[in-house]
Amino acid sequence: MEAYLDNSATTRAFEGVRDVVVKTMMEDYGNPSSLHKKGMEAERYVKRAAEEIAKTLKASPSEIIFTSGGTESNNMAIIGGAKAARRKGNHIITSTIEHASVYNVFGHLEKEGWRVSYIPVDEYGRLNQEALLSRLDDETVLVSVMYVNNEIGSVNPIGEIGAMIKEKSPGTLFHVDAIQAYGKYRINPKREQIDLLSASGHKIHGPKGAGFLYVKNGVKIAPTVFGGGQQRGLRSGTHNVPGIAGLGEAARLIYENHEEKIAAMYRLKRLFVELVSALPDVQVNGYTDERSAPHIVSVSFGGVRSEVLLHALEEKGIYVSSGSACSSNHPAVSGTLRGIGLERRFLDSTLRFSFSIFTTEEEIRYCAEVLKELLPVLRRYRRM
Amino acid sequence: MEAYLDNSATTRAFEGVRDVVVKTMMEDYGNPSSLHKKGMEAERYVKRAAEEIAKTLKASPSEIIFTSGGTESNNMAIIGGAKAARRKGNHIITSTIEHASVYNVFGHLEKEGWRVSYIPVDEYGRLNQEALLSRLDDETVLVSVMYVNNEIGSVNPIGEIGAMIKEKSPGTLFHVDAIQAYGKYRINPKREQIDLLSASGHKIHGPKGAGFLYVKNGVKIAPTVFGGGQQRGLRSGTHNVPGIAGLGEAARLIYENHEEKIAAMYRLKRLFVELVSALPDVQVNGYTDERSAPHIVSVSFGGVRSEVLLHALEEKGIYVSSGSACSSNHPAVSGTLRGIGLERRFLDSTLRFSFSIFTTEEEIRYCAEVLKELLPVLRRYRRM
Repeated sequence: MEAYLDNSATTRAFEGVRDVVVKTMMEDYGNPSSLHKKGMEAERYVKRAAEEIAKTLKASPSEIIFTSGGTESNNMAIIGGAKAARRKGNHIITSTIEHASVYNVFGHLEKEGWRVSYIPVDEYGRLNQEALLSRLDDETVLVSVMYVNNEIGSVNPIGEIGAMIKEKSPGTLFHVDAIQAYGKYRINPKREQIDLLSASGHKIHGPKGAGFLYVKNGVKIAPTVFGGGQQRGLRSGTHNVPGIAGLGEAARLIYENHEEKIAAMYRLKRLFVELVSALPDVQVNGYTDERSAPHIVSVSFGGVRSEVLLHALEEKGIYVSSGSACSSNHPAVSGTLRGIGLERRFLDSTLRFSFSIFTTEEEIRYCAEVLKELLPVLRRYRRM
Repeated sequence: MEAYLDNSATTRAFEGVRDVVVKTMMEDYGNPSSLHKKGMEAERYVKRAAEEIAKTLKASPSEIIFTSGGTESNNMAIIGGAKAARRKGNHIITSTIEHASVYNVFGHLEKEGWRVSYIPVDEYGRLNQEALLSRLDDETVLVSVMYVNNEIGSVNPIGEIGAMIKEKSPGTLFHVDAIQAYGKYRINPKREQIDLLSASGHKIHGPKGAGFLYVKNGVKIAPTVFGGGQQRGLRSGTHNVPGIAGLGEAARLIYENHEEKIAAMYRLKRLFVELVSALPDVQVNGYTDERSAPHIVSVSFGGVRSEVLLHALEEKGIYVSSGSACSSNHPAVSGTLRGIGLERRFLDSTLRFSFSIFTTEEEIRYCAEVLKELLPVLRRYRRM
């Protein structure tokens, strides 16, 4: 039996996504920048995708900029947003547990002379709002906060944070990395006072190499890619029509009967938490109820190295992640786990189990059973 | 009947490309950064693609960096190359007829304080090498020259230019935009003394949203995208496995029986040039023989506006381009056509016909016939 429980790393595509990708590669393969019918045909796919995505955000299609994925969206938002506001100030803010595609951008900007504040989180991975408030000043041009943490599934109260930022400093741009949240939550950027929001296709059964950045109408960001002037000059380059069309279709499908999908994921999560919590010397990190995301469970296993357990599970056809899979193969100690103050002995003994709408109860039960069998063996082996 | 003669804008994908894209979306959909089997499986596709591409360039797989397409490759090469060499000098060089994804990058760097030299071309669209030589100085850190021009199919003697640059200024980086050349020529970056070379998937029947940058071993460029550190830190972001695998497959297929493919394209080109040259007040621009690229024919039609002719052809199922399709919908007067000193009356009366290995003699003859019928009508109409 197989259990793919690494859906926060990437997901299998929807069949409908595959179909539109194939159609736009083989039949409607035009370049949207071409002036003839084949170009217009291709442009229609791009427009439809922007409309589908806009609908899920109660936004306007003109607010959707297509990118090559979540990393590019985060880079574009933060570098582009900061650069465009450079005259207003020199200070940018983020949290201590952001994804590498946010914190390494802040690291880069710090080297370029920006003043950066890193805001801590509580033991559940939620941003310390008082600390954020105290660091917001006249020079702050951008705040970037993740919606759902990719390692432990903690959820920030984005609406509260947006309101707080805008009350104290209306001119400060609010960027939200929603790469693990889009498709799991109904996000309303206007209501939540978000200026820039990043999302990725392959986390929601869409194509890899496709993502978007929501850019609120009226918000200015500096382009970071130069060329033919596509997408209002913000992101030059021939539109990746199959990727964009596939992303639009994935957005439409993931938000169809959305409440049921999410409720089903929470049921699986509760079941899994219940089953693994019953095992000795095992700790589930962060909240485990509806205050956490429906698809991520972070579990620490006393006395077992995460990589050893990961490969033992792999042998049984169970695929999970140690920390985040998004940091290319170097399993460094996670900033998130340190950020929430995890006991030291657990830092290198933690795995992430992540679900999707394709995950079944059978997979969950199988995984819990295998863990129950494996843990005593691995612990015994370790003591020898 | 239909004749898609806009293959320099984009191409239909190979069936083999479609198959590997589908396989990596639906079955082998892992994230190459994941440590388990599904991740390793996905990584193998990436490795294989790098090997296939490297083979076509007589390069090493470690010299291939995957990008989201030609525009990103050009941006990464020029911005990344210039930034990494910033301490050595402040001068960069390109030609007057580059694609927007090169000249707009130079425009951006010029605004950022770089000194830029633009080298003119002759009436055939070939770089003035003496002018280049005279502008190369101790401060020159990068020269960017296109291999094949996207509007008229002119071909630069890249090997000669590379040798010239390296003889006078060995430390200057030589970047080649090969987006219209890769798949049409056997390119050997080492022999031609190229440091950086850009290519795109969807120009060779590969996927849109996928391209690569060849970065010669030992050549340093500064990263422009920050995140999980994938691809030696040069291009962070989850690998676009379907795009990359599709690109590798396209590279393999396009270079299979390559000489025959190219000879067939030249036969079509000769036929087309012969047929349209017989029409009154029609001029084919640039070289028309093997000194020009096999797939691009630029034709000026006296007394007819290009957009009018483009749409009249479209009515007959023939799809072509006015100037370059890569400049998002704004049909500005082409820098290339001005660059080669085209008669003023032709500037807005020129179309690009571009072929691929799928193009047939029937399509060529049909297009020439339709032109023969349409031109007198459009010219008469115009005089009224």
